[in-house]
Amino acid sequence: MTTATPSSPLVTRHDHDGYVTLVLSNPARRNALSAAMMSALQDAFDDIAQNPDIRCVILAADGPVFCAGHDLKEMGGITDCDQHASLFAQCSRLMMRIVTLPQPVIARVRGMATAAGCQLVASCDLAVAARSAKFATPGVNIGLFCSTPMVALSRNIARKHAMRMLLTGDPVPADTAFAMGLVSDVVDDDDLETATDDLAAGIAARSGMTVRLGKQAFYKQIEMPLPDAYAYASDVMTTNMQKHDAREGIGAFVEKRHPTWRHE
Amino acid sequence: MTTATPSSPLVTRHDHDGYVTLVLSNPARRNALSAAMMSALQDAFDDIAQNPDIRCVILAADGPVFCAGHDLKEMGGITDCDQHASLFAQCSRLMMRIVTLPQPVIARVRGMATAAGCQLVASCDLAVAARSAKFATPGVNIGLFCSTPMVALSRNIARKHAMRMLLTGDPVPADTAFAMGLVSDVVDDDDLETATDDLAAGIAARSGMTVRLGKQAFYKQIEMPLPDAYAYASDVMTTNMQKHDAREGIGAFVEKRHPTWRHE
Amino acid sequence: MTTATPSSPLVTRHDHDGYVTLVLSNPARRNALSAAMMSALQDAFDDIAQNPDIRCVILAADGPVFCAGHDLKEMGGITDCDQHASLFAQCSRLMMRIVTLPQPVIARVRGMATAAGCQLVASCDLAVAARSAKFATPGVNIGLFCSTPMVALSRNIARKHAMRMLLTGDPVPADTAFAMGLVSDVVDDDDLETATDDLAAGIAARSGMTVRLGKQAFYKQIEMPLPDAYAYASDVMTTNMQKHDAREGIGAFVEKRHPTWRHE
Repeated sequence: MTTATPSSPLVTRHDHDGYVTLVLSNPARRNALSAAMMSALQDAFDDIAQNPDIRCVILAADGPVFCAGHDLKEMGGITDCDQHASLFAQCSRLMMRIVTLPQPVIARVRGMATAAGCQLVASCDLAVAARSAKFATPGVNIGLFCSTPMVALSRNIARKHAMRMLLTGDPVPADTAFAMGLVSDVVDDDDLETATDDLAAGIAARSGMTVRLGKQAFYKQIEMPLPDAYAYASDVMTTNMQKHDAREGIGAFVEKRHPTWRHE
Repeated sequence: MTTATPSSPLVTRHDHDGYVTLVLSNPARRNALSAAMMSALQDAFDDIAQNPDIRCVILAADGPVFCAGHDLKEMGGITDCDQHASLFAQCSRLMMRIVTLPQPVIARVRGMATAAGCQLVASCDLAVAARSAKFATPGVNIGLFCSTPMVALSRNIARKHAMRMLLTGDPVPADTAFAMGLVSDVVDDDDLETATDDLAAGIAARSGMTVRLGKQAFYKQIEMPLPDAYAYASDVMTTNMQKHDAREGIGAFVEKRHPTWRHE
Repeated sequence: MTTATPSSPLVTRHDHDGYVTLVLSNPARRNALSAAMMSALQDAFDDIAQNPDIRCVILAADGPVFCAGHDLKEMGGITDCDQHASLFAQCSRLMMRIVTLPQPVIARVRGMATAAGCQLVASCDLAVAARSAKFATPGVNIGLFCSTPMVALSRNIARKHAMRMLLTGDPVPADTAFAMGLVSDVVDDDDLETATDDLAAGIAARSGMTVRLGKQAFYKQIEMPLPDAYAYASDVMTTNMQKHDAREGIGAFVEKRHPTWRHE
């Protein structure tokens, strides 16, 4: 059971049972991240962040291109340095919004994901790619190095693989992207929607509290020295254990029955 | 030549020539990391740490399951927050004991390694997996996110691969685990013991001093900024060069003869 | 059009259109990194760093061995601790010179790259390997752990893969090295020179300013926490946007014509 509501002309939102699909809906402009598109996405994510009934998000796109990155016509029309700074700050805010979102975000990628479009994928927690999908950071071709995309990219894949993408702009096919770590799943093109829905529904069927605690802890601990990371993660697990859903989940496991989550 | 001594009812220790095999020996409980099991492992490692004649350790398991993680019956029976905290602290201490152990530790994995059992593998320096072995962090299924296992996991494999394991609990086969970096070797099931013994014996045949210096330096430098890492590692090499075994090893190499280590 | 000038007896420099090939030219000594060889390389890189007309560097080697690491005869002849320290400091300075060089450096690897020779490859931004090339850090065999090579190695590949190389000294074939992230390209042996030249020429055909900004930013941001990395990278992109070549590149893209770089 799905209801579609245009949350803006640029981003369409579909509400499913426990998860939401956000669709970049400007295929005529190859879903470019114009200021308006970024703003629509930011609003959609901010709204989702407030809603604990949503336990997973799919970020998808209409048309043959997933996302072509910044809107170069818009960007080329700006001459003021402060306006450029403001545009890049807006983009970085959006990417960090995905990382700090309480719910996991799954990129569902068909077609090309380039520059800040590739960064969107890298910023998501998971990414399901159609086998024909491709990934590139081709800013070097237009004299504008993909410096902000590389922040996300270089935290996903090995340095030399990242550098090759950044210095050549060459597209990377989905299977290679999986081997490198840029996507978590590759499926046949025909299976993309079903596989991504199954993945999201599976996450939404788990305790929302558990998933929220875990996602937040993941990005915090990964930047800590090992002893600090363990001290922090041990605290998180202790907190987790005091919650209803952990007691219920362990009880259900021991008693060999299905757990009933309160998501808290 | 091997002598087996039960260092505890839960962990069996086999002493070989220059290395030791520790065997989780509670297959009826799927080698769960109960407080008693963790305590037996900690004691065994603490003992090994004091013995420079041991130059490598294999961590293996009896039965069809390598290790199923925490003992959920035990954990579910605890209601006191401080006791949970104490359990997770004990577990983190054990995992860090492996990392700080002077000798390299090789996980020898047959069957499933799940949750804190997967963390054990991730915490070892090397891991040899039988081709049929599987790895999973399924805490999300019981409402208790694998937050401490992810500390080790996320330092072994790419973020999206780690997140997929953590958010779905899906098992990862050995070949994929190798490709991701979670294990260092995959061998046919029939070759598991032989291949692991060969690897351990090979390390034990090297200078114990050299290996100790190197392992310690590995984990220290990896958390430093690049210039600090180089300054530190250059000091380590200079120290290494003043030792008997480096002079002997280089002399033997130049003179085309076999070196004779003092392990100091 | 290529001109060859011996920049020293040990390193040969070939100037191409926009890029330079440096060739380790002491095959009789397996291109060992003697103090003299490191000094020749350092001088060659220092010279290149000053020349903005050079937009890419290939680091190659004469003979069947890419580079065997330190000169063990030279090193074994030193007994003074300060001289060892000075040698390792010189080597670390050279490796960091590659990382801080304004231009990208591509290792072109045929044959074995071992110890500090493997570190050279790991320190480059990109690496093209002949399919028959091999990589190893076998210091453990001579009682001298590859502690400085592991600084570069452990920042390129997964921990267990790095540890296996360091603790066993076993050589890793090119295809595996690519899968692990140690090299960015693997090509048939017969195609090594052509493929590397094409890669270098492609980078040299881009805006030198753009590539310089990007390379420098890559290594700076990768050691920062995420919010700092985004703040810094956003500044870099804003700076990049104010440059002629970005305006020209975006203009050319929008107008569907070829850009003309000033490299500034």
